[in-house]
Parts: sequence; structure tokens; C-alpha cells
Amino acid sequence: MSLATTKDFPLFQIRDGDGWKKVASRQTYADPYIQIEQADFLTPGRPDRPITWTIAHRKAAVAIAPVLEDGRYLLISQERIPVQDTLWEFPAGQIDVIDSPDPRQTIIDTALTELREEAGVVLHPNLGALRPLGYFLPSQGFTNEHVYLFRAEPVCVVGQPEPEDSEHISAVRPVSAGELRRMIAANEITNALTLALYARMSAQGLI
Amino acid sequence: MSLATTKDFPLFQIRDGDGWKKVASRQTYADPYIQIEQADFLTPGRPDRPITWTIAHRKAAVAIAPVLEDGRYLLISQERIPVQDTLWEFPAGQIDVIDSPDPRQTIIDTALTELREEAGVVLHPNLGALRPLGYFLPSQGFTNEHVYLFRAEPVCVVGQPEPEDSEHISAVRPVSAGELRRMIAANEITNALTLALYARMSAQGLI
Repeated sequence: MSLATTKDFPLFQIRDGDGWKKVASRQTYADPYIQIEQADFLTPGRPDRPITWTIAHRKAAVAIAPVLEDGRYLLISQERIPVQDTLWEFPAGQIDVIDSPDPRQTIIDTALTELREEAGVVLHPNLGALRPLGYFLPSQGFTNEHVYLFRAEPVCVVGQPEPEDSEHISAVRPVSAGELRRMIAANEITNALTLALYARMSAQGLI
Repeated sequence: MSLATTKDFPLFQIRDGDGWKKVASRQTYADPYIQIEQADFLTPGRPDRPITWTIAHRKAAVAIAPVLEDGRYLLISQERIPVQDTLWEFPAGQIDVIDSPDPRQTIIDTALTELREEAGVVLHPNLGALRPLGYFLPSQGFTNEHVYLFRAEPVCVVGQPEPEDSEHISAVRPVSAGELRRMIAANEITNALTLALYARMSAQGLI
């Protein structure tokens, strides 16, 4: 698989149609990270009387399972302040501007940047491929957040993590597929992005 | 396995200690569904200078994979307003009050209630068991939301879904393990709670 094939993936889009219609909306809160909207919707199951819902708006994101040439996966150890814990995760990050002329290229570029910044790796210059694995919705009753999933294989270590100022990554750890599986089975890996990548890879027979 | 064994599961807890300390906090928004907190933290990697973070507070939740006596899984089709789409999911719901004297019993009771309300099933009276599968964090950089995971097996169909007024469930569908796997592989199942349950069950060799 060449990098040229990687743009063959679905974009997540929210829009009216097929029985869905947003009929009213007001923003009740906004800061640089979260915007809260209260809106009224007609839905396929409620075509006559709008229902009011509270929605947390968030940037889209990417999450990537990096695989070394020896087949091991790279996990990073990251401080996650909302849960006051340091978690083992696959690299991930938000997409700053997604309404570019070529959104798929923006998503791919963000995935490659996060691999370098969070795990210190790049795609292998000749053999490396970024395989799209769809997307997932972290909390679909609450937020429009959506996360594009990729498997990067093989990757080469080129340096240390260089996270953004607001992040703290304390370790990068190669784990075998068996150890990854054990950590998930034992509730040692608890974050949705890593579990979603594992589910997609497992269902596709990639792990 | 009897129901008596099901209380053997870890509770998710957020607290100071092990290098974590919340040193200041102010609430910047609140409605019945979401509360936004801006807080300053000392962390293991930043012990000297607090970092400010924005946190969306949400109730804890449960999600359950129901399995019929013939081994098929039950999916429900639910309208999810923040993403303007109808999704195939396992049953799930929020926990209204978790600081009860016996929080594990509250979590179990909520799981059983959601099975009945969202999928129209109950645990088999003699053979049924609710197997805890840990928990997951939907979006750990953004919210303290956490979701307890269970496998309910076997379950018996006793009626139609009777969702709350704010919910709309249009179908309950039994699927084989192979069909569930195909839907996950094909990006037809995109919600974190169903992917997290699949990942845990796959890693534990249950599916």
C-alpha cells in the first residue's frame, strides 16, 4: 500500500437531511476548547415536534496505532488532567483547521505530525504506509467530537517526543500485540481512542 | 458465574495524591447535562508550576453487551442528536446518583434497568450473569466522563424497548459475532461504547 491510497476514507459530516433538521440554535457557552450549544431538532423519529438538546462542540481529532518494523506497537504515557491520571495511549491530537480545500490531506498531515511530536517516529521512508481505519465518536449523546483512526506501519524512531507545552508525555513504550491485548483485557488501557483502534484492528484481522 | 460475583470490579475515582493536586477551581458553566470547570493542577510532571485546564463534567454511565441464549448479540438503533445520525449501539445509560452507600450495586442496578428499557431484555432467571469488563474513558483530555462495561449473558426478551422520553430507539437487532465484527471492521459501528465493549471482549477471548 502506498501513501497515495490513504485518501480513500470516509469524512464524518453533520448535516440536515434524511429526516434531520436543526430548527433553532443558541450558543450558551464558549471558550477556546469547548462550545456549548442548545438547539432544537426535528428527527426521523420525531418529525412533528422539535426536541431540545445540549451539545458540546469540539474539534475533530486523529489517533494512530504506530507499528515498528519488528511488529511491536508504540504506546505513550500521557498525563490526562480531567481524570487526574497518567494513561497508556496511542498517539492522538486535535485537528486545528479541518475546513481546508483538501480535508483528507489535513487529517493525514495531522496524523503524521502527532506521530513525530508524541512518539518521536516517522513513517518508514520506503515501506511506510498510513492505513485509514474509519473514525469513532467518543460520546455521541453529548458531543460532536469525532476521531479519525489510522494504523502507521512500519514507523522508524527518529527522536524523543516533543509534545506541545500543554502536554506531558513521560514515556514511549514498545509492546507486543500480546502485551497490548493483556493490558486491554486487564483494564490497564482505559481510553476510548486506544480501545477503538484495537477494536477496528481486531475486527479487520490486523492484530 | 453467579450474580454474587459481579461486585468484583474496580471503581473509577478522581482524587489528589501521587503527585496530583488541584490547587484552584472555578465553575464557568452549568446546565443539567454539562458543567464546565476551569481548574489549576500540579501534576507528577509539573510539580512546581500549576497548569490550567478546562474540564467538562458529566455523569458516569454504563454500557452492556447483551447476549442471547443462541449466542447472538443485541444491538439497538438509537437517534443521537449531537451527530445527527441513527447509530447501532449496545444499550447504555447514565448513572443518576453514584455516591450511594453501595456504588457498585447502583452501577449494577443501572445496567439491569438499561437492558430492560433500551433492549427489552432481562438476565435469564437461572443462568444469567452480569460480567464486569472494567470501564472506559470516552475523551480523557476533555471530560471526566467514564463508562462501566458489562457483558450480560444470557438474556431473555421480555418486551419492547421503553426508552425515556428524551430517547428514540427504533429497532433492536440480534447479530452474530461475525456480523458484529463485520460492522465494526466496515465503520458501520462508530460509537466508542460499542467499540470499547468489543475491544475488552476480544482481548479477554470472549468474542
